[in-house]
Amino acid sequence: MIGDEILSGRVQDANIRLFARKLGTLGITFAEARVIPDVTELIVEAVNACRRCHDYVFTTGGIGPTHDDITSAAIAKAFGVPLVRDARAEALLRAQYGDKRLNPARLTMADVPEGATLIDNPISKAPGFRLGNVFVLAGVPFIAEAMFEGLQGQLEGGAPVVSRTIVTYLTEGNMAERLSALQEEHADVALGSYPFLRGGQLGTSLVVRGRDEGAVERAAGAVRALIREYGFEPMDEDPAPN
Amino acid sequence: MIGDEILSGRVQDANIRLFARKLGTLGITFAEARVIPDVTELIVEAVNACRRCHDYVFTTGGIGPTHDDITSAAIAKAFGVPLVRDARAEALLRAQYGDKRLNPARLTMADVPEGATLIDNPISKAPGFRLGNVFVLAGVPFIAEAMFEGLQGQLEGGAPVVSRTIVTYLTEGNMAERLSALQEEHADVALGSYPFLRGGQLGTSLVVRGRDEGAVERAAGAVRALIREYGFEPMDEDPAPN
Repeated sequence: MIGDEILSGRVQDANIRLFARKLGTLGITFAEARVIPDVTELIVEAVNACRRCHDYVFTTGGIGPTHDDITSAAIAKAFGVPLVRDARAEALLRAQYGDKRLNPARLTMADVPEGATLIDNPISKAPGFRLGNVFVLAGVPFIAEAMFEGLQGQLEGGAPVVSRTIVTYLTEGNMAERLSALQEEHADVALGSYPFLRGGQLGTSLVVRGRDEGAVERAAGAVRALIREYGFEPMDEDPAPN
Repeated sequence: MIGDEILSGRVQDANIRLFARKLGTLGITFAEARVIPDVTELIVEAVNACRRCHDYVFTTGGIGPTHDDITSAAIAKAFGVPLVRDARAEALLRAQYGDKRLNPARLTMADVPEGATLIDNPISKAPGFRLGNVFVLAGVPFIAEAMFEGLQGQLEGGAPVVSRTIVTYLTEGNMAERLSALQEEHADVALGSYPFLRGGQLGTSLVVRGRDEGAVERAAGAVRALIREYGFEPMDEDPAPN
């Protein structure tokens, strides 16, 4: 996520959760998220670090027409290639704005790193691009989402992650040792324990996640049985998105 | 931010914005945020990378009593020191839970890396800790916030960042070249341009940020004048938090 507006607190980030949901559905592990400012060197550094250790890197933000939109140039620098005007991108912008409104600033949105392929933007038309394993998207969440939707044929995933969330007003510290044993017995799933305070009452959300739905169901059953052993009622919550 | 629950999309992160606001008020630049999963090696790697290139590193999450709370041990590993039982932390937990409820799992919350100093937790009592320039806080936002409040004497900041947000239904592409010139003339502030769609109308939020309030005011005045030149009315929005 490239953008001073997140790090200044001006806007609440929504893209991390967007990618979390989309990637989970595709069975792609969301390995890490970074929020970095609009500073060329920091974008270069983060993109190069991430593209070397992850299969896919998605960036959002900084591909508009203004002086603070420096992502495309920074990605070109990260790859050591020049930024070039893309004829198809220019045609898309010309169709969107018309000759009169397509000023030089807007035309810069047709500049992409050499060798990049365009990513469609069905909303505001200015395209993103893919270079190697790096996918460069707009920052506005509903535009980022629409651009991501068009990518799915290019992404190789696995079995979708499924989850069960079981809520109880038993506190996690009471059952922590038993949960640890339960996680060991069900090593084919991940069991997360998250404390909460709702209406003045402490409780715990227990989240079972995995790619094998049968294994997730078995572990969730064991969690429910454990909560009942303590004399509490387990409550299933709407399945988390993944 | 350490926690599978953010990367799975189960919960919306709130701590990035919390730190953005708090750090801005203290005049500390928020250089980057990372969200990483509950995996020891990834925590070690991220903490070591960040503590070498930033003045302060704040972590949230993973210091509770359950098997998935691995942050304290991971930080110890990152620093190459053992995890040791802290007598004062144990006393705090004993006062909070009483001998009967202070089971072995809860007692692990008194384990901190050797050499760490405790960070008070006025809400749920289980302390965080500081080791070198790394501050380890709870993940639940209102607890993280309360713990951060107690730290302020330990943090050296600068002049608080102030900002002005000016909103207009002029689109950023129309005025992009003029904005670029305006940024050059007012190099002592950062001018951000953020497109939005509200009630079906496109517009732009222009945000002027800096540590010199006079410079911020001068640049904001220039932004308002520029918008009027285009025949639009600039609207001041409630000041962003910083």
